[in-house]
Amino acid sequence: MSIITIVGAGMMGSAIGFPASDNGHEIRLVGTPLDREIIEHARRTGEHLTLRRRLPERFRYYQIEELDEALAGAELLVSGVSSFGVDWFLEEILPVIQETLPVLAVTKGMQDTEDGELIPYPHLYAKKLDRRLSLNAVGGPCTSYELADHDPTEVCFCGEDMEVLRRIKALFETNYYHVSLSTDVVGVECAVAMKNAYALAVTLAVGLSERTEGVGGTLHYNSQAGLFGQSVREMRRLLALVGGGEENIVYGAGDLYVTVFGGRTRLIGTLLGRGLSFERAMEELEGVTLESIVIATRTARAVRRLIELGRAKAEDFPLLLHVDDIISRGAQVAIPWSSFETEETRA
Amino acid sequence: MSIITIVGAGMMGSAIGFPASDNGHEIRLVGTPLDREIIEHARRTGEHLTLRRRLPERFRYYQIEELDEALAGAELLVSGVSSFGVDWFLEEILPVIQETLPVLAVTKGMQDTEDGELIPYPHLYAKKLDRRLSLNAVGGPCTSYELADHDPTEVCFCGEDMEVLRRIKALFETNYYHVSLSTDVVGVECAVAMKNAYALAVTLAVGLSERTEGVGGTLHYNSQAGLFGQSVREMRRLLALVGGGEENIVYGAGDLYVTVFGGRTRLIGTLLGRGLSFERAMEELEGVTLESIVIATRTARAVRRLIELGRAKAEDFPLLLHVDDIISRGAQVAIPWSSFETEETRA
Repeated sequence: MSIITIVGAGMMGSAIGFPASDNGHEIRLVGTPLDREIIEHARRTGEHLTLRRRLPERFRYYQIEELDEALAGAELLVSGVSSFGVDWFLEEILPVIQETLPVLAVTKGMQDTEDGELIPYPHLYAKKLDRRLSLNAVGGPCTSYELADHDPTEVCFCGEDMEVLRRIKALFETNYYHVSLSTDVVGVECAVAMKNAYALAVTLAVGLSERTEGVGGTLHYNSQAGLFGQSVREMRRLLALVGGGEENIVYGAGDLYVTVFGGRTRLIGTLLGRGLSFERAMEELEGVTLESIVIATRTARAVRRLIELGRAKAEDFPLLLHVDDIISRGAQVAIPWSSFETEETRA
Repeated sequence: MSIITIVGAGMMGSAIGFPASDNGHEIRLVGTPLDREIIEHARRTGEHLTLRRRLPERFRYYQIEELDEALAGAELLVSGVSSFGVDWFLEEILPVIQETLPVLAVTKGMQDTEDGELIPYPHLYAKKLDRRLSLNAVGGPCTSYELADHDPTEVCFCGEDMEVLRRIKALFETNYYHVSLSTDVVGVECAVAMKNAYALAVTLAVGLSERTEGVGGTLHYNSQAGLFGQSVREMRRLLALVGGGEENIVYGAGDLYVTVFGGRTRLIGTLLGRGLSFERAMEELEGVTLESIVIATRTARAVRRLIELGRAKAEDFPLLLHVDDIISRGAQVAIPWSSFETEETRA
């Protein structure tokens, strides 16, 4: 029996505690300053406010001021914070933990730099901290509520040290939560981050269908599939650009698939495809800043920088750049279908 | 203005005539001996019996005995026959056409041999005929009725000669039908053929969801996405086995996506996932032999042969072999989730 401390009590951070709890481990769920209500509610009712499910009996709840108590004796620290909490986590949490405590972060994608580099958060954290921490991440197709409901789920834990990864896997592996391992942190993180931009791209087709069939009408799959195929094509190119292994396209494709059917990203893409401007589409979401939009624009910005630097070609990323134009420049939806065409001559 | 003769008046053969017709070419639709009623009906009403749509004005209709007339002056022969018609096409049509007449076949996948080889039909035809014909094929995510309805569609034409491919593309390219080209015939054909087995695999998850949520209930996407990711993983391995280029995974993924949402393959997978035996599931389809089932079992058979020959490993294809066990050996659905897990060490 091990103690696993999760900092960040949002939907995914909480859901990832389920398989570990099923394995008999004690889960200490620590709220960030933004999670006070979630922790209060869980303490009172045993239910998660936004996941809308009963939490396992083995969960214990802590407000952020109780962090030390929550970390005492922990074998693993899980970061469940969203992209908007990564800086806070770096400044408030990572400096105070023991160096022997490994960290597993729900993947937050990559940070783009002035040089057009895309750096995964584990590497970014390592650079900014003057400490040798074991920083690992989890990515792959996994919606929080389905994990909580024990739907068969396949994910990947990535990190520098395979031995550490195996030990972390042993804490979480169940008959419904299946874990692959990889030391290709750049490859896995890139593959998973890319789904955000491309899920928007694929769901544009849903909105486009609605222009002819009406809202909620018959869906057209040729166009969705064409965009899905082009997404895989561009994701392969981006993986090559960042130096990630080709095999990680598996996580990109699977995660793209699950995100296309998810809630808010699909809704945004659909509204854009219908013809709403990005501003109007965001209004429909009542101002909730979509994490996926942030990661999508960050990915596009890095690619544009690489194009400026002559290290990437604009004609290799027509779909990504078009999605970025829609989000960042108020462009109308006008998918550049012809630009997806290629000529391949067998070597 | 060119004359394009299509032999095989089924849904896809007929639909592929639409973009060429929109480009101003004359389309001569020739029925096989099994298409008599379709041709009769089209002559009488201008409508396609199974596509259930009005055919373009430029279409002309021929019964099989009028083949010579239909071929006179043609610049391209399109084969629209199903997998069940490939032998007939090889024996009755290919021997009688002029050698200067290029052929474009709607992809029928690959034939497996005793040596575990998977040979694409263009190559098989070339081996069996004592003629030098230009044999090309089209693959990629494209359902016939959506093409007929002008949904944006991305496909690939493959063949030996890029110049010929460009000429054929020029006949078909429109603002809704977008064509990539490739001389990697093995790669494209393999990628497209594989979708059949793996679409069954992914849709098993739909039926599995129904066991808990009821028929037509909430779908679970973690499991579908996990199977989709594993499908991409196995498709990459199979591409490597047959010597196809890695980039063709784009067509495999896109075509898999469109087939997962299609009609009968999805239905079969769903019924199997629900727990019906393969026999019972086929009864529900009222005895209609599914082309996709044939191609799926053929793919699995080739992989099993390669495993016997020591050229492939069973642990690399757990999902394919499980689907084959369900179809060919009456096995219960029991997806081997754990066997999908991998460990990748960065080079």
